[in-house]
Amino acid sequence: MSIKPYILGGAQTDFQRNWTKEGKTFVSMFREIVEDGLAAVGLDYDEIKRLNKENRVGVFVGNFDAEQYANQGHLGAFLTEVHPAFYGVPGGRYEAACASGSVALDAAGTKIRAGDYDVCIIVGLEVMKTVNSAVGGDFLGTAAYYEKEAKGIEFPFPKLFGKLADVIVERNSHVKEDRIMEGFAEISRINYDNAKTNPRAQTRSWFMNKEHANTRGGDYNMAVGGRLAITDCSQVTDGAALMVIASPEYAKEFAKKSGKKLESMSVLKGWGHRVAPMQFVNKVAESKGNDYILPWTRQAVKDAYDRAGLDIDQMDVIETHDCFTSSEYAAISAFGITKPGEEHQAIEDGTIARTGKKPINPSGGLIGAGHPVGASGVRMALDIHKQVTGQAGGYQVEGSKNGIMLNIGGSATTNMTFVIGQE
Amino acid sequence: MSIKPYILGGAQTDFQRNWTKEGKTFVSMFREIVEDGLAAVGLDYDEIKRLNKENRVGVFVGNFDAEQYANQGHLGAFLTEVHPAFYGVPGGRYEAACASGSVALDAAGTKIRAGDYDVCIIVGLEVMKTVNSAVGGDFLGTAAYYEKEAKGIEFPFPKLFGKLADVIVERNSHVKEDRIMEGFAEISRINYDNAKTNPRAQTRSWFMNKEHANTRGGDYNMAVGGRLAITDCSQVTDGAALMVIASPEYAKEFAKKSGKKLESMSVLKGWGHRVAPMQFVNKVAESKGNDYILPWTRQAVKDAYDRAGLDIDQMDVIETHDCFTSSEYAAISAFGITKPGEEHQAIEDGTIARTGKKPINPSGGLIGAGHPVGASGVRMALDIHKQVTGQAGGYQVEGSKNGIMLNIGGSATTNMTFVIGQE
Repeated sequence: MSIKPYILGGAQTDFQRNWTKEGKTFVSMFREIVEDGLAAVGLDYDEIKRLNKENRVGVFVGNFDAEQYANQGHLGAFLTEVHPAFYGVPGGRYEAACASGSVALDAAGTKIRAGDYDVCIIVGLEVMKTVNSAVGGDFLGTAAYYEKEAKGIEFPFPKLFGKLADVIVERNSHVKEDRIMEGFAEISRINYDNAKTNPRAQTRSWFMNKEHANTRGGDYNMAVGGRLAITDCSQVTDGAALMVIASPEYAKEFAKKSGKKLESMSVLKGWGHRVAPMQFVNKVAESKGNDYILPWTRQAVKDAYDRAGLDIDQMDVIETHDCFTSSEYAAISAFGITKPGEEHQAIEDGTIARTGKKPINPSGGLIGAGHPVGASGVRMALDIHKQVTGQAGGYQVEGSKNGIMLNIGGSATTNMTFVIGQE
Repeated sequence: MSIKPYILGGAQTDFQRNWTKEGKTFVSMFREIVEDGLAAVGLDYDEIKRLNKENRVGVFVGNFDAEQYANQGHLGAFLTEVHPAFYGVPGGRYEAACASGSVALDAAGTKIRAGDYDVCIIVGLEVMKTVNSAVGGDFLGTAAYYEKEAKGIEFPFPKLFGKLADVIVERNSHVKEDRIMEGFAEISRINYDNAKTNPRAQTRSWFMNKEHANTRGGDYNMAVGGRLAITDCSQVTDGAALMVIASPEYAKEFAKKSGKKLESMSVLKGWGHRVAPMQFVNKVAESKGNDYILPWTRQAVKDAYDRAGLDIDQMDVIETHDCFTSSEYAAISAFGITKPGEEHQAIEDGTIARTGKKPINPSGGLIGAGHPVGASGVRMALDIHKQVTGQAGGYQVEGSKNGIMLNIGGSATTNMTFVIGQE
């Protein structure tokens, strides 16, 4: 990529919060995340007004399904409800199921690279606790092919990713099933443990250990989808994340004016975006005989590396889309950490642990930190930004210079990746 | 704009069709529009495969609310259900209420201008006749601020644009109210008459004349929102539109290889995108004292002219968002056809008629041609493309070289414009 957008910073809400219980709606969430995010960056409303006079600032909202969860569309226009400084600022809403935040970030990055805007504000947002879990599970089914894969099925997504677990077991006949299932349990344990160091993680005060994660079925860890149990799943979460990106010229000028160090900023070095067949059965049929179970996920990773001119060797930290333990398991080889079929080794030898060579999800990931669907892509990008600029606090992976994130929508249908690093 | 994306062509479905009555879903609609659209352009699946190998083709789906109308999200991935050539092709869904198609087109155009892709396929799509009109009216309410402007209100949008009619009457005290209301009726008549020459228009066989359009209230032309009656409204429509755009290099090469004339293609010369305050009351409060009732609509038009280096003088044809007659009325001055407050003159003296100097909606517009919400932006752009390349058939405005379109979302909240013309 020629022009590399700068990440100025951002914020996320506390993913432990239940906004409905607080008596608050998505509009309150917009207000809080915009105020917190702009304050974190040091961008004030006067500057937004100045930029808007010249049509040099845009808003990009990633959201999966406020239509159903909150009976509201047109979220790209809701920053005008937060502050009049946003009157006139272009905005849109971007959706690709659980990869909605990434599609918004990609659209924003493209605007910067095309030279259209100097500053883009990306907000990923989802309120999910407005309904009970059965209804919410049905809403989530619209991220798959609803009529064929979700209608009338209780909790369709655990079942789809349970099928991914099945395929992982089937195609890895050289590895004992118990070893794979223990790998899933260890993935869960690591994510929960990491989350305990993240002050905004949903599960930071929840109990988890590997033994519990490996005891599937029964009353204490109910089976939810084939081989997978509750401990293999990310949980229903309310939350939002905001990130501000800018053109290199603006970023440098902004650093000078605001007294910020340029080292507090990172750059978007590469991106990948690949869409696999919508239906999970078609994914499995297409990937038969391929080294990778999810070849388009691998391709999206490779595209981001290629655009960045980097590879797994230069990645110091990784955030991946562990909606379920099986999706993180399959991602290990997609990132190039191991060859396909050797994923279990990277779990067993500590490679993906916080202190390992290729730490995955120091934030806690979706399982530990939480998964407010439309916000996850933005939250992941923000966490990699924090890591490579040394601002991740308690979950900092020391010395990180470059990282990659993978955000998926549906049953690994939309695959989006970003390589983010020090300039 | 430095690089100007080329429009290779496209297609739209027959907006008279009721897909639910045909026993067909949005998936059938995707299939038909993709097959028709690619055939119209002359782009085959082998070429899409070739482009995708190099990651040079992307898909952009504009859709307002399939979550509610069709219980389905993640529409950006549905072209993989049409044909395996789309396996791996990046795709996303873009939403800004009734301006969703334009947001998709803008994202696609930006990708071309940033040099990311050679070819972008934009599909605008909405199935609306899956529910009855009361339920559908409630769904449409999510394009406004649902909780404050739509909840519990029967047909909220006719009422919102009825309020726009009120403001037009109030702020034009120098014009007799009857004259304004007759102007609205004439707008309706023109759109219906134009639609009769468009073989894909929803109302092409419907009855309308000015006398009927001006008889509001009563059994034959029911009042639906303050001063507005049924004849002032666009109707619930099922439909889709597809457009293919490309980089200048690709377009020229494609013309050579396919034996197409370069004159059958047009270029995206400029765009505008402005978001006004979400709530209609805030729009009215903000524009108090301004020459324009909808200043951000005007600004979006001006931005497109400026980027194109053109003005109203060079516009030979216009497509505007006449969701209601009041929105077309207000757009007349926004386009610069008249000064604010003189809109009625352009209606009365025939300026906006098909044979006038600044013909608006030769296609029939939303009132005549139909308004499948997520498709409208793409359909408008396609119609301007057809006009400036002499391919509009029965509704051709002879000698058109340049045109502009205005697509709005919500109560003129999101405003998107494109200037399209001959290279």
